[in-house]
Amino acid sequence: MPPARKIHHIAGSFKMRNGVLQDPEVAYETWGQLNYQQDNAILLFTGLSPSAHAASSTLDHSTGWWEQMIGEDKPIDTDKYFVICVNSLGSCFGSTGPASINPATGERYRLDFPVLTIEDIAHAGQSVVNALGIKKLHAVIGASMGGMTSIAHSILYPDVADGLVSISGAARAQPFSIAVRSLQREMIRSDDGWNNGQYDQPPSTGMKLARKLGMLSYRSAAEFTKRFGRERVPEERQTGNPFDIDFEVESYLDAHARKFIGSFDANCYLYLSRAMDLFDVADHGGSVEHGLNRVGARRVMVIGVKTDLLFPLWQQRELAEGLRGNQREVSFHALDSIQGHDAFLVDMDQFRPLICDFFNCSMNQPGQLRSI
Amino acid sequence: MPPARKIHHIAGSFKMRNGVLQDPEVAYETWGQLNYQQDNAILLFTGLSPSAHAASSTLDHSTGWWEQMIGEDKPIDTDKYFVICVNSLGSCFGSTGPASINPATGERYRLDFPVLTIEDIAHAGQSVVNALGIKKLHAVIGASMGGMTSIAHSILYPDVADGLVSISGAARAQPFSIAVRSLQREMIRSDDGWNNGQYDQPPSTGMKLARKLGMLSYRSAAEFTKRFGRERVPEERQTGNPFDIDFEVESYLDAHARKFIGSFDANCYLYLSRAMDLFDVADHGGSVEHGLNRVGARRVMVIGVKTDLLFPLWQQRELAEGLRGNQREVSFHALDSIQGHDAFLVDMDQFRPLICDFFNCSMNQPGQLRSI
Repeated sequence: MPPARKIHHIAGSFKMRNGVLQDPEVAYETWGQLNYQQDNAILLFTGLSPSAHAASSTLDHSTGWWEQMIGEDKPIDTDKYFVICVNSLGSCFGSTGPASINPATGERYRLDFPVLTIEDIAHAGQSVVNALGIKKLHAVIGASMGGMTSIAHSILYPDVADGLVSISGAARAQPFSIAVRSLQREMIRSDDGWNNGQYDQPPSTGMKLARKLGMLSYRSAAEFTKRFGRERVPEERQTGNPFDIDFEVESYLDAHARKFIGSFDANCYLYLSRAMDLFDVADHGGSVEHGLNRVGARRVMVIGVKTDLLFPLWQQRELAEGLRGNQREVSFHALDSIQGHDAFLVDMDQFRPLICDFFNCSMNQPGQLRSI
Repeated sequence: MPPARKIHHIAGSFKMRNGVLQDPEVAYETWGQLNYQQDNAILLFTGLSPSAHAASSTLDHSTGWWEQMIGEDKPIDTDKYFVICVNSLGSCFGSTGPASINPATGERYRLDFPVLTIEDIAHAGQSVVNALGIKKLHAVIGASMGGMTSIAHSILYPDVADGLVSISGAARAQPFSIAVRSLQREMIRSDDGWNNGQYDQPPSTGMKLARKLGMLSYRSAAEFTKRFGRERVPEERQTGNPFDIDFEVESYLDAHARKFIGSFDANCYLYLSRAMDLFDVADHGGSVEHGLNRVGARRVMVIGVKTDLLFPLWQQRELAEGLRGNQREVSFHALDSIQGHDAFLVDMDQFRPLICDFFNCSMNQPGQLRSI
């Protein structure tokens, strides 16, 4: 049985905005079958941290990061569509990134990796589409950084994807989000274990702090209040140190941040995080307006969440309004969810019907799966 | 000329909730004169980081942290009121705290300082009022942690202050704010230089990170967008390191955080920060409702800011609603400012008229000073 994760080898030089990679690789997974007309492919870009494993399959039964959204009888119905999810260039789950071996030196790239841009990630994704011999995509879709990448793809390859779905994405990073990510990177860089990128063991203190700040920015204060209140951890888990974990909210963040440390490379994190700061649709034509005007997709859906701190609602409105006109059919949904930026991963009852509708799925009732 | 900062020496044992201090000191400054009836005193509690130097005076001409609010012809008019501002117990600007010498050992308290509570800070403030021979206060007032302390004071000393002004305070910390502060403390504790509190040189990396996260949480994303946009620092200030400062928002945070490092003791920061997490009006009577019912002040003003991430508007509403009844006259103001939690320090045009009105000042026009 072949592995679920496939690797596309790009032969020769891959030109990035700020440099060149020799023979890089792009990891991807697929679900469903390409139809005879070759017009049913959907390209999915991820947020900063996920791999290409968006959903389980017969080749890999483990749960994917968007398990409830992709599969038979699901909003993105794999009986109907051929879904391709790519691991972002610069990441560490099979695609070439700072943790990969540089063929020129035989050593890891580390900080010799060129400054990464969202556009580079979009190009790498398109290289997989080309390798699969697909000329047209039914749609390109992504959330968070993946939303940015989807927009970049539709600007760089205006004739490829007919549809575009941007979930909690943005035309460019707002300064508050730049500041949050800059602080996360500084936490990692301040860890002596980072050693200017030349670590063998991960800089776990910095990664833990950065992940915790991430988790604070991914949800909302209202959601924390509802979930944790002022609950204390049980006495047997308290250490007596007055600055150790006392409230359940602290315990939750600590447990989840510890899981993250081992699974994500610190240098990759730095590069991907910076790529989000640098992304600016205005680089394509001089203004956000001109940049969005270059988006080739004709059917567009923009979804945002009212409690999103990192990609706030005004940025969703900016996208939707900037994309209207030019013969595009644009729908805009401002979700009243308390789940913040992460809503697309957890608030499925609100997301399923919208995604189902866009992809014309056959779920019986909006918001519910046809079969349990 | 006597110094502006006075020190009240508490003789003997000062009982805290979690321990006892021997002969502690409380630093304070005053403005104006106590009148013959001794009914014109106002007690001001500060946020986490300020000293007692709230405003300049003939004894100390340097600008105070609430300079525009306190003085002759200002909203808290020192021609009319005798204003007392105390440096919080546990802080490091003259009051006894973790950085002070423990008389029992001749060494700094450091982590031997008892776990600090907001109530301890309120008691220490009241000890100054007692020392000055003042039986009744016209009002107790504070913002942020000072708002919490003012509420605690009015619960612990219900017969002392007739008025209470809580600005961006709360009946108890919400879990999101606990998580933010917990992460700030972890940044400091993760710095090897902290050395479990036994440092000689400050743990500057941890303090810088913590201060930056503080600054992110004190303002709002909208304010950052307005102030910084996506401006880059000039080329001559760029280092060429891809992860160094690039955007102006990063440069601003860095410059301000560096200033903070030298001025605030890390252990004091940890204790004061934790005190805010631990504060819960429900400790006084079993519920927030019962706790607020014990507030002795009859004239109450609650002010909150719509963009406050740390002490959100629902907490202001909770305070105002919980204080209504029991023959209290309560006014509630939800300010439409983009300045977030820090609005009381910067959005003076919105705060001046409210404070002026509460303290019956004689500024000619609301929001404007009588004389320039």
